[in-house]
Amino acid sequence: MNLTAYRDLSPAALRERIRQGEFDGPTAGLANGYAQANLMIVRRELAYDFLLFCQRNPKPCPLLDVTDPGSFEPRHAAPGADIRTDFPRYRIYRNGELDQEVQDITPFWEDDMVAFLIGCSFSFEAALLANGVPVRHIEDGHNVPMYRTNIACQPAGGLSGPMVVSMRPMPANKVVRAVQVTSRFPSVHGAPVHVGDPRLLGIADLAKPDFGEPSELREGEVPVFWACGVTPQAVAMQARPELVITHAPGHMFITDLRDEQLGVI
Amino acid sequence: MNLTAYRDLSPAALRERIRQGEFDGPTAGLANGYAQANLMIVRRELAYDFLLFCQRNPKPCPLLDVTDPGSFEPRHAAPGADIRTDFPRYRIYRNGELDQEVQDITPFWEDDMVAFLIGCSFSFEAALLANGVPVRHIEDGHNVPMYRTNIACQPAGGLSGPMVVSMRPMPANKVVRAVQVTSRFPSVHGAPVHVGDPRLLGIADLAKPDFGEPSELREGEVPVFWACGVTPQAVAMQARPELVITHAPGHMFITDLRDEQLGVI
Repeated sequence: MNLTAYRDLSPAALRERIRQGEFDGPTAGLANGYAQANLMIVRRELAYDFLLFCQRNPKPCPLLDVTDPGSFEPRHAAPGADIRTDFPRYRIYRNGELDQEVQDITPFWEDDMVAFLIGCSFSFEAALLANGVPVRHIEDGHNVPMYRTNIACQPAGGLSGPMVVSMRPMPANKVVRAVQVTSRFPSVHGAPVHVGDPRLLGIADLAKPDFGEPSELREGEVPVFWACGVTPQAVAMQARPELVITHAPGHMFITDLRDEQLGVI
Repeated sequence: MNLTAYRDLSPAALRERIRQGEFDGPTAGLANGYAQANLMIVRRELAYDFLLFCQRNPKPCPLLDVTDPGSFEPRHAAPGADIRTDFPRYRIYRNGELDQEVQDITPFWEDDMVAFLIGCSFSFEAALLANGVPVRHIEDGHNVPMYRTNIACQPAGGLSGPMVVSMRPMPANKVVRAVQVTSRFPSVHGAPVHVGDPRLLGIADLAKPDFGEPSELREGEVPVFWACGVTPQAVAMQARPELVITHAPGHMFITDLRDEQLGVI
């Protein structure tokens, strides 16, 4: 696929291409400057617990938008868009197990479904790069390494579980700037949750992430850990709900919100 | 009442005095450095819409804590406290109308009630004062002036209505600092929503606030407007729910959260 043709399109134009099935790849690097979002769709009966879980755990679960029950329009993040068609790929989970991957969830949509759009690390990584802070897994062209930790999320109703974090190795003299830069953006995970020794988070071996691929930690570098949007998915699946729909990893929703608009200062 | 005796007590010690009925006055100036909170208690059937309303309108409705249905312990904001007894005074609203004011809501508590603790401007006013930004209504010893605006909140379910704002006159050379200082604290209303001409908010006359008492706007001063925690109460009452319980104005909950802990950077 010729990515260059898509790189400079507006969010609305990109979503149009995706909706028409013309583009179904990963969205990293597209619509630079605009926030992308993770997806969790649950039935209304689970939506209260999930919304409360997000309220109680804003670092792993920063909400960019929540649709009205049955509505597939994310009115805050992208008015006029359609949640059912505007992600390149979706995953259908039944009873907590992956059932299938599809490009259009219109046939699966139900009248009481609620879609949660969750902030994504792409936004704060753009801010890190703009500040001269290197991001290793982008340089290396692979997915960020993610780890289950010994930090328990605040439970809500039937939802509970450990926080999942992503790790980025930083030269020691960039750590302070990384904290400052990402603190501005609470709605895309915000400041790191931990700097330094992974064992304090219960992570035995950085070379063996639970999700994604490992990043090399070089001499003079410090591992920096951010709360990760995989957390709410992992927690929800543990509760084995009958039907949950998510985006396929890396195949995100492109919002109309500019990354910089998400800065609190 | 001898306020000095209470001024230096810890939040837990103060709540104990309040619980025992020894103190039932306004809480401004007590437990300096600790965040105080507004209260909205609704039945579970209204809780989803209210939680969603707060998610969609974080500036007027910043949530400090949400209890589990039926639980009266605010586990995040003040573990071990009791929502039913630890406010100095409560108001019981039936069908959207004030029914009575009480010091203890234990007799009114129901098994499916959910309590929302909402951030309060006391926290950011302390930060303004600490930064040398004067706060007129504190100097004058009266309640802050509040106004209904032409800014529509994002509706959620049956809840909709205009944003209510509070106004503080600032010397023109303090406005920038006021924006910077309060931007750090999104969970207590955060940055102002408007600076300058009140007519742009649909406010005809600053001398006639909808709630509270007017503050004089002096030569060389600019009116600065913040989203106000009265908004969610006003919006919920419009929906005329059978039973809602709030704090009595000025009679807040004293949390264990330090104001400074609420700063995002």
